[in-house]
Amino acid sequence: MVPHLTTALTGPINELEARMLESVPAIERWFRLEWMEHTPPFYAAVDLRNAGFKLAPVDTDLFPSRFNGLTPQMLPLAVQAAMAAIEKICPEAKNLLLVPGVAWRNTYYQEHLQTLVQVFTQAGLNVRVGSLDRKLNRTETFVLPDGSGLQVQPLVRGKRRLGVDGFDPCTILLNHDLAEGVPGLLEDLHEQYLLPPLHAAASQRRKSTYFQSYEEVARKFAKLLGMDPWLLHPLHGRCGEVDLSSEAGIECLKAQADAVLAKVRRKHKEYGIRSEAFVIIKADGGRSGQGVVSLRSSAELDDPQRRQRIIDAQVLPSEVIVQEGVPTHERVSEAVAEPVVYTIDRYVVGGMYRVHAERGVEESLDAPGTIYAPLAFAETARLPQPGERPGASAPNRFYMYGVVARLALLAAAYELEATDPDAERFE
Amino acid sequence: MVPHLTTALTGPINELEARMLESVPAIERWFRLEWMEHTPPFYAAVDLRNAGFKLAPVDTDLFPSRFNGLTPQMLPLAVQAAMAAIEKICPEAKNLLLVPGVAWRNTYYQEHLQTLVQVFTQAGLNVRVGSLDRKLNRTETFVLPDGSGLQVQPLVRGKRRLGVDGFDPCTILLNHDLAEGVPGLLEDLHEQYLLPPLHAAASQRRKSTYFQSYEEVARKFAKLLGMDPWLLHPLHGRCGEVDLSSEAGIECLKAQADAVLAKVRRKHKEYGIRSEAFVIIKADGGRSGQGVVSLRSSAELDDPQRRQRIIDAQVLPSEVIVQEGVPTHERVSEAVAEPVVYTIDRYVVGGMYRVHAERGVEESLDAPGTIYAPLAFAETARLPQPGERPGASAPNRFYMYGVVARLALLAAAYELEATDPDAERFE
Repeated sequence: MVPHLTTALTGPINELEARMLESVPAIERWFRLEWMEHTPPFYAAVDLRNAGFKLAPVDTDLFPSRFNGLTPQMLPLAVQAAMAAIEKICPEAKNLLLVPGVAWRNTYYQEHLQTLVQVFTQAGLNVRVGSLDRKLNRTETFVLPDGSGLQVQPLVRGKRRLGVDGFDPCTILLNHDLAEGVPGLLEDLHEQYLLPPLHAAASQRRKSTYFQSYEEVARKFAKLLGMDPWLLHPLHGRCGEVDLSSEAGIECLKAQADAVLAKVRRKHKEYGIRSEAFVIIKADGGRSGQGVVSLRSSAELDDPQRRQRIIDAQVLPSEVIVQEGVPTHERVSEAVAEPVVYTIDRYVVGGMYRVHAERGVEESLDAPGTIYAPLAFAETARLPQPGERPGASAPNRFYMYGVVARLALLAAAYELEATDPDAERFE
Repeated sequence: MVPHLTTALTGPINELEARMLESVPAIERWFRLEWMEHTPPFYAAVDLRNAGFKLAPVDTDLFPSRFNGLTPQMLPLAVQAAMAAIEKICPEAKNLLLVPGVAWRNTYYQEHLQTLVQVFTQAGLNVRVGSLDRKLNRTETFVLPDGSGLQVQPLVRGKRRLGVDGFDPCTILLNHDLAEGVPGLLEDLHEQYLLPPLHAAASQRRKSTYFQSYEEVARKFAKLLGMDPWLLHPLHGRCGEVDLSSEAGIECLKAQADAVLAKVRRKHKEYGIRSEAFVIIKADGGRSGQGVVSLRSSAELDDPQRRQRIIDAQVLPSEVIVQEGVPTHERVSEAVAEPVVYTIDRYVVGGMYRVHAERGVEESLDAPGTIYAPLAFAETARLPQPGERPGASAPNRFYMYGVVARLALLAAAYELEATDPDAERFE
């Protein structure tokens, strides 16, 4: 199943793609050197938006789900990447404990867990699934649509280590985003690798911190290629600890929205882009994809209903990020689509399209009614040919997606270093 | 294009496969620990023979060709493996010089070179091709069937470094097997990584040394799985420096052939295998696949014609290895076939079938008239499922092939350590 792409590739993105294709060895070497200094998140899913004139990540999920949506042809890549990751982190590793998210009773999510179990088994680990759900008090076995069985066990916390009955893991892989906070069960573990680390929890991360790291990465990378970094990153502003039900809070938000909109309009003018500027307002903390509102003008905030929607959308009451909206110009069979790129360690292991038939080009597609189609990576694995006309063929597109997804990954590495509570700082 | 397999899977190999499938995490961990101690050859192609009752490597080529025969779906695996290899060997690497073999004017071989150029470019290196051929005195550009161009340049040797005009590589990748000896051009290089090292040259390697290493590896691995190592390795004996035109030389060969045949017959009896034992006689040194003669009885050596064929087949005049013949029970569309598995660093990156319509199950297929069909790795990338009936589905087969190919790779690592002239020995 190969989605039919109808991306409108016009304007600066063609130049960006051409620059990337003629710079493959330099780009890959640059990543190689960056990964010598920075540790990539263990796994991730990066949401990209290709606006035709710019390509930018809009979310980097450090607790990725839907691995079962990758094409089977891609799984050997995931296994190989997992092998490389394990070898680096803990080559003697024998046992891996996988901690699923809240949806662990959902069959589709269980298929995702089963895919992870297979990938890490094949990479050389004994894998068990242990749920944080306190209502689970005995091992449950689920029969999946492919006939295979998946066991989910209650976690057993010893004085210093976490496991499941009769299984003491050296590595614990979280697939639970911990959006409601970090449970004590996961704290003060002794000589067990916890991946990702607790400060990557959705309750701890701030989108503004992440996008600040991303801007830094995009600037470095754009310098390497001699390009405008704006082609790769969404502009953003934030309001700190303000009360959105107060006029002062709304004024801060309006000021930020106006500032971002003005910058975006300037860029549109510079490049002769005719699409109308808009901004996205979302909670700075909390789960990915929650509470997203878009505005074309700060005046919209004078509408009390619209204001209430923003207040309702907050996971944490008072921190908000205002981000340049990146429309998506991609379609799969007429429906609006955005690519999601999956990584393990520093490697791109696959991707898919998030497709929503009822959403517009400026809206979030991470919403009920969304379907997923595998990205045509497998069919387009032919490597980019130097000298080939950019945009002429799909594989080139995917190289560019892989590059920007890895920039997003590198930004998460920067972010996690900056927010690491145990880091030694020499400043 | 998926070749149709008609492998007769009966007898002990089914047990071996079952044992491997239930031991995936232990096997992968074992490899992980071995690769901590031993450096895999940079790249390799391993010829396997699946006899239905045993599965063994019969040749490990450290200067593999035919990378263009891998399916395009497999190339991202090759790129990812190449990235991991470069990161380990020389992360700062910018330039790679690829030194092609004698067939560099052959179009099919040029397509193979182009595939390597693409893989290493994509992995983050600037790649140039520089030939050892002294008749080449200016850059030649070839247009390949896909329309792309391949440049081959004359090598330029400075006082201490090797390159091509205006290009100083930090890594030199040999795809020339150096069967006629090591040219001075490649010796005494200063701070350039030469891969594989010169003592891997076909003129330096001895099959007997390799198969001794392989036996050691097979024994360790079989112990891990609680299996008979014979299911994984061909028995062998060798005659050292003897003159095959003398009666004493022939007597040594007969004694070795008798000894190996007797051991093989004992094993056949033990397992109730009805196929008739035979041995292969080949030059201990020299190019892979050259000069191979098979015998069912040492009495055949009394035939002067047969004797003459052995003498004619020698690349080096006097060293001979006698090896248990492993028949192949695989067929692709009726023709006799054997799998060839490709590796980069410690990873399996693809494979193909060597198919020969006019050869028998006991004969070498590395001969004129051979065709190659991609191994169905891509189509069968579904990972083995624990509890699935072994032999029931193709993917399991390929896991087993990947394991035995990596055992062969590990043996080459042992061999190259043992034969390294620069190694420090603490014995």
